[in-house]
Amino acid sequence: MSVRFNGKYLNGFVREDEFSHIWPQVELAHKQLEDRSGPGSDFLGWVNLPRDYDREEFARIKAAAQKIISDTDVLIVIGIGGSYLGARAVIEAVGSIQYNSVCKATPQIFFAGNTISPNALNDLMVICEGKRVSVNVISKSGTTTEPAIAFRVFKKYLEERYGVEEARKRIYATTDARKGTLKELADAEGYESFVVPDDVGGRFSVLTAVGLLPIACAGIDIDALMAGAAAAADKLSVCDPTNDCYRYAAARNILYRRGYCVETLVSYEPNFTMMNEWFKQLYGESEGKDGKGLMPTSVINSTDLHSMGQFVQDGARIMFETVVDIKKPVRDFLVEADAENRDGLNFLAGMGLAEVNRKAMLGTILAHNDGGVPNIVLETESLGEYDLGYLIYFFERACAISGYLLGVNPFDQPGVESYKKNMFALLGKPGYEAQKAELEAKLG
Amino acid sequence: MSVRFNGKYLNGFVREDEFSHIWPQVELAHKQLEDRSGPGSDFLGWVNLPRDYDREEFARIKAAAQKIISDTDVLIVIGIGGSYLGARAVIEAVGSIQYNSVCKATPQIFFAGNTISPNALNDLMVICEGKRVSVNVISKSGTTTEPAIAFRVFKKYLEERYGVEEARKRIYATTDARKGTLKELADAEGYESFVVPDDVGGRFSVLTAVGLLPIACAGIDIDALMAGAAAAADKLSVCDPTNDCYRYAAARNILYRRGYCVETLVSYEPNFTMMNEWFKQLYGESEGKDGKGLMPTSVINSTDLHSMGQFVQDGARIMFETVVDIKKPVRDFLVEADAENRDGLNFLAGMGLAEVNRKAMLGTILAHNDGGVPNIVLETESLGEYDLGYLIYFFERACAISGYLLGVNPFDQPGVESYKKNMFALLGKPGYEAQKAELEAKLG
Repeated sequence: MSVRFNGKYLNGFVREDEFSHIWPQVELAHKQLEDRSGPGSDFLGWVNLPRDYDREEFARIKAAAQKIISDTDVLIVIGIGGSYLGARAVIEAVGSIQYNSVCKATPQIFFAGNTISPNALNDLMVICEGKRVSVNVISKSGTTTEPAIAFRVFKKYLEERYGVEEARKRIYATTDARKGTLKELADAEGYESFVVPDDVGGRFSVLTAVGLLPIACAGIDIDALMAGAAAAADKLSVCDPTNDCYRYAAARNILYRRGYCVETLVSYEPNFTMMNEWFKQLYGESEGKDGKGLMPTSVINSTDLHSMGQFVQDGARIMFETVVDIKKPVRDFLVEADAENRDGLNFLAGMGLAEVNRKAMLGTILAHNDGGVPNIVLETESLGEYDLGYLIYFFERACAISGYLLGVNPFDQPGVESYKKNMFALLGKPGYEAQKAELEAKLG
Repeated sequence: MSVRFNGKYLNGFVREDEFSHIWPQVELAHKQLEDRSGPGSDFLGWVNLPRDYDREEFARIKAAAQKIISDTDVLIVIGIGGSYLGARAVIEAVGSIQYNSVCKATPQIFFAGNTISPNALNDLMVICEGKRVSVNVISKSGTTTEPAIAFRVFKKYLEERYGVEEARKRIYATTDARKGTLKELADAEGYESFVVPDDVGGRFSVLTAVGLLPIACAGIDIDALMAGAAAAADKLSVCDPTNDCYRYAAARNILYRRGYCVETLVSYEPNFTMMNEWFKQLYGESEGKDGKGLMPTSVINSTDLHSMGQFVQDGARIMFETVVDIKKPVRDFLVEADAENRDGLNFLAGMGLAEVNRKAMLGTILAHNDGGVPNIVLETESLGEYDLGYLIYFFERACAISGYLLGVNPFDQPGVESYKKNMFALLGKPGYEAQKAELEAKLG
């Protein structure tokens, strides 16, 4: 029903009075957020979103999802960064990392426009063969290179296959409310359109139409998702030392100032894999600037205990771990007794794998503590819609508070432009001629 | 036809004479490897493996793969760590990260026994419904918890579904040549068996039966894979400053000693995603010990330029990047002109996406250099079997040299046992009673 911060495994690494010492800064960060007085305050639309979202659009999202479910085998979702990660993360967390192999009553969902690889696009063309296809293109501007290329391809594909009229009914645009290339095209063609709000940055946009339409197409209950987020918005906007979200923000900043430079997000559930990636964008883009920031990394255990586990246990002491402790699986799996017991596993007979997995988690936390790795534990009930909605908002709000504690603008991402400018120049895009020669000289 | 070390983007970060200064240590590491005089020399079976592998077993692997291809829709590969990552990495690199959605003439391949999650096992049961199933169980001992649990489940499943006799023909065991639980079971049941060699550690085992059987089941040419690795073994065992593998090992160690603590492996090809994970195990387990080691992380660009890109460009300056520059895609994808050109992409018309992707890579390298991030570039022709075989051996040998340069045993992984002991104690495994009370007291 909530997310609980468990700081027990910080013992020996962080003293309780360090929380008291940093608390005035947390109060200040809270005030900056609530007063809209901190840097980046034009992008605080996510703060009250779970309470005051557009109900009319929400109903249209559900209706569009129903139509897509009824007439589509393969939904292609075109988007990059925040227009990609949130939807995929929620679909795999609530559903399954194997969603496309186990979905039955809902379409397969593939993500395009998040890479320039020709292999990826060729594979999607194979996947679409003989299937009923719809497209959700998600881009605030419509000109971001990766999704724009993919949409050019899929628009033509749908028009050739279904004719222009029917193609228009199979394309759903999530874009700016008023302006931009994609908005103009959507209006001209008559695509059903949804809004990327002006005051919600990409990495905070999963609970807008950006995330909600693909999520609803997977048969996920988006009412419950929003209800969980709304409960978090209520509970976590009270500035009080019992605010688990603020305690998490404080703890990770204390550790950063002590010299830890990497935060590893840990879960024991493969379905959480893309939530790890969503977290990495949220925190990496929000904090990683001005030469500062914890580097976000992630593992899925026990899988990665057999790859990164050695390093975490015994390598360079640069990281702390934040463990997302998910108490209930979708459905448990009982270990049965075996008459021969050659594998020696009968001591587990009658136990559910959820319990075995939990003991692996607890054993690992203690082992890593012994190895010199501070562990923060965030306890949540399940990856069901309500609980996941709560967790999403928890991470968003902790991220904002963390950014202010760090002394950065958590809502911009100026560094993302640097590679784009170079790429455009090297590709000969009109307007970038001056830089081209200079860059080519560097490449030699 | 080889892997080329391009050190151009280390300019301004590492001087050429630093390579000269560390070179005597590289020569020493080479000697330790060749003389088998360094730590962990019982585990050097991988060094000459591509030249002197068991041809009789290799032929049996190919025959078994043909049988599996002919009578199987879903192959379940049970293994963890090195018994999981290599096979999956090669299948997705040569084939596709969407292998299971695009394979036609070969079975779908799912990996089990690399997690304790009940959700993962329940999903696999759904995936197997109505499909012809075979199992390749990979475990040196047969008692590692995760794969042992999964094998207990799938053995019973196959026996109930096909009867004991037919199940025996659908189970392939890759295990110790002589001893251990799985070997005894395989002999008793008459499973076709393949060998996990004694002198090849898990993370170096992809070119043994451990990797080769699942890889061959995906229709991948394992002769070409081995030929590429053999060419690398020939070329890279000459200790000479033109040895690109040794230059890579030297460069990353120079950077480590300069204070960089994270190495981010970068590729612009989503099909390389699991190769990144394979690399992380190889380097993390080999170097991450005694409080030392570069922390291996990874990104797939341009996808992750829209998540981790901000941090890399402008966050805490703790990492360098190693970019795997893959020159040729499986098949290119041409950007076509569009009469309306609303998206402004016509400047790309007539260009292949491989070229666009390449310019994104070069632009990013220059941008990250400007942001203070040293870049190593490893150039390879393709992700075809021969080139990938070469790259695998390149990384393995560079890892061994790196470990000796760092002053660790690159071939052990003592830290992996710590969590297991705690887990067994908490689960009440016979023999761990003493620790149980102590750990439970810590958990409170």
